[in-house]
Amino acid sequence: MPRIVMKFGGTSVADLDRIRAVARRVKREVDAGNEVAVVVSAMAGTTNQLVAWCQALSPLHDAREYDTVVATGEQVTTGLLAIALQEIGVEARSWQGWQIPIRTDNAHGKARIAEIDGAALIRRMGAGQVAVVAGFQGIAPTGRITTLGRGGSDTSAVALAAALRADRCDIYTDVDGVYTTDPRIVPKARKLARISYEEMLELASVGAKVLQTRSVELAMNEHVRVRVLSSFLDAPDDGTLGTLVVDEEEIVEKETVSGIAYSRDDAKVTLRRVPDRPGIAAGVFGLLADRAINVDMIVQNIAADGTTDLTFTVGKADLARAQAVLAELAPTIGFAGIDTDTNVAKISVVGVGMRSHAGVAGTMFRALADKAINIEVISTSEIKVSVLIAAEYTELAVRALHTAYGLDAG
Amino acid sequence: MPRIVMKFGGTSVADLDRIRAVARRVKREVDAGNEVAVVVSAMAGTTNQLVAWCQALSPLHDAREYDTVVATGEQVTTGLLAIALQEIGVEARSWQGWQIPIRTDNAHGKARIAEIDGAALIRRMGAGQVAVVAGFQGIAPTGRITTLGRGGSDTSAVALAAALRADRCDIYTDVDGVYTTDPRIVPKARKLARISYEEMLELASVGAKVLQTRSVELAMNEHVRVRVLSSFLDAPDDGTLGTLVVDEEEIVEKETVSGIAYSRDDAKVTLRRVPDRPGIAAGVFGLLADRAINVDMIVQNIAADGTTDLTFTVGKADLARAQAVLAELAPTIGFAGIDTDTNVAKISVVGVGMRSHAGVAGTMFRALADKAINIEVISTSEIKVSVLIAAEYTELAVRALHTAYGLDAG
Repeated sequence: MPRIVMKFGGTSVADLDRIRAVARRVKREVDAGNEVAVVVSAMAGTTNQLVAWCQALSPLHDAREYDTVVATGEQVTTGLLAIALQEIGVEARSWQGWQIPIRTDNAHGKARIAEIDGAALIRRMGAGQVAVVAGFQGIAPTGRITTLGRGGSDTSAVALAAALRADRCDIYTDVDGVYTTDPRIVPKARKLARISYEEMLELASVGAKVLQTRSVELAMNEHVRVRVLSSFLDAPDDGTLGTLVVDEEEIVEKETVSGIAYSRDDAKVTLRRVPDRPGIAAGVFGLLADRAINVDMIVQNIAADGTTDLTFTVGKADLARAQAVLAELAPTIGFAGIDTDTNVAKISVVGVGMRSHAGVAGTMFRALADKAINIEVISTSEIKVSVLIAAEYTELAVRALHTAYGLDAG
Repeated sequence: MPRIVMKFGGTSVADLDRIRAVARRVKREVDAGNEVAVVVSAMAGTTNQLVAWCQALSPLHDAREYDTVVATGEQVTTGLLAIALQEIGVEARSWQGWQIPIRTDNAHGKARIAEIDGAALIRRMGAGQVAVVAGFQGIAPTGRITTLGRGGSDTSAVALAAALRADRCDIYTDVDGVYTTDPRIVPKARKLARISYEEMLELASVGAKVLQTRSVELAMNEHVRVRVLSSFLDAPDDGTLGTLVVDEEEIVEKETVSGIAYSRDDAKVTLRRVPDRPGIAAGVFGLLADRAINVDMIVQNIAADGTTDLTFTVGKADLARAQAVLAELAPTIGFAGIDTDTNVAKISVVGVGMRSHAGVAGTMFRALADKAINIEVISTSEIKVSVLIAAEYTELAVRALHTAYGLDAG
């Protein structure tokens, strides 16, 4: 009998009516002959309220107590959904992280799952009982409740699917799949039927926040077939709903470019007239890494006078801290000044087909040049080309690239 | 080092300011050199909301899932109070029922505590850490979360005090102690410094709802010294705060009558012209007991014609069911009719001193007769005399008795 994991986020269980709707959708999968485990988040708004209480009592609150408080949100949803399922004749029971157990490390507030013992669930599911599992939480070696950090319910679902050796992990969310780009910018954006883990990761990292990055990494490592679909559409599941995230091998028709992503979360930093000596870059980026500041794109232009302009991007949220770190370095390195620019956007084209197709970057540069959009920084990976441009051109650039790569719906 | 358990109900932890106030009060006990465990309820209103959700999804919801949902209320309070304590420099950690563990039976929604393993808490408390314990909950032999039923946090506190061999169990509530009667009716009512478990039980059973009955029974059996005091007064604890509930032996100055209680929760039922045969009463009350309908006061008057009027009281909430049961019996027993009256009040005088003082009942009947209040039913126990009167005379009767037994404050 096929075994599936279904995951519903906070907006999908926001109130009793939504919970009843989730119960009906679960019943449909049970009636279709599946063994089902459901992973649920807290009802929308609940987690924010609980977090706010902890913050109000102490800005530097004990992460163990924070976990104890916020994990209750998911616990409530599990019990309510189990009741809603029983009410429509579906056998079900709730499971908290510590009951299964879902073992994590001790990193409270951002714990990582170490091991899930699926034995009890598999036995109950085999006997026809739906397992309603609290997402986002686990139990530490100390016996205390842990949480996986915001968005962690996606990771719970994928990890559970791996532990249960599920045939599929359906992530129900407020969008009906992964699109070639943001439909709010490009109305002709198309829903993708399939996308590879690698592409999904690149899209997630540049701002298409459909799935939490960690959950995609985990799915890739554990070969869990993930489907992203809408919990708000009530269409019958004929197999074409949503977007399936799978191994590259499962994608027969490989598009050169699958999607265009954008992000306005970065800031550009330029160190002017840095002495062109070995070890300078290592000094700068080593110290930033030590202070847990992620650096993304990096370019360096050597001038004739033996100095160089060193440009890179950091998250806008980290900019002030990055400036402080760089100010520390100024005396030892000796550069002329620091320029920063938060008015930038990163535009990326992503596709596993790039591996076998030349000219992808050229198409991008030409399309942007045709619209007179200046490229400030360029970076590439095996399946992605990203450029940094002035933020005001974001929509124009996304639309131009969507057309240039032939992604517009017919 | 003295070891105490402090218990705070829902109104005492209703919001963050109240939780901070509780933290300060706990700190005072820690600073005074006590090892402290704190038992908390859910924030006022939370449990009602959670119960309402379960009810709305299914009137006949699974009690196991109900317990999973409602137990979260206490869990939230434990985490928040632990954070509030740490914020003012008091070492603390939260404990859920399953973590201690507080083992109960499988009677979900109204579980009874079977055993508390106090070892881990005693060790931590000995090392200076305050234990913040979720009231109202435990873990069943099945590994599922149980709740003790409404008001169960008092029982949690007393059971924990017994398991920890605590020197005292302080129950903080919204009244500042146990009074000779309801101060809203008798402004001259006095706060009692001490009261025996037995008196407290009799007062609780007739409507002075300061402590949950089960918690008093448990305290009596385990010899836990319980103190009832207000969480809203911020007076320094000089040892005279609240009312101490203790063994009768600890009460040196035994009052003949300690308090006057009243209840309007009863209904009077009269079976008219019941044949006066052996076994009739057994048939009536046996069947009512089988249907879990509690009968309280019973009187029977034999008439000259060989029939009898059988009068008794049941809880108003049980009246409709009691009438249905009696209707079933009518053909076999053969009585003339059923009269019911919900417009009655039960007034009780309670005091361990009655055991050694005659004339207590006589004083009661005289005081009521002086006010022309008709007594409909009388029942007595070793330390209590109760009468049923018309409800409209409740306040008049309570005031008259309070004066007659010399309880008015000077």
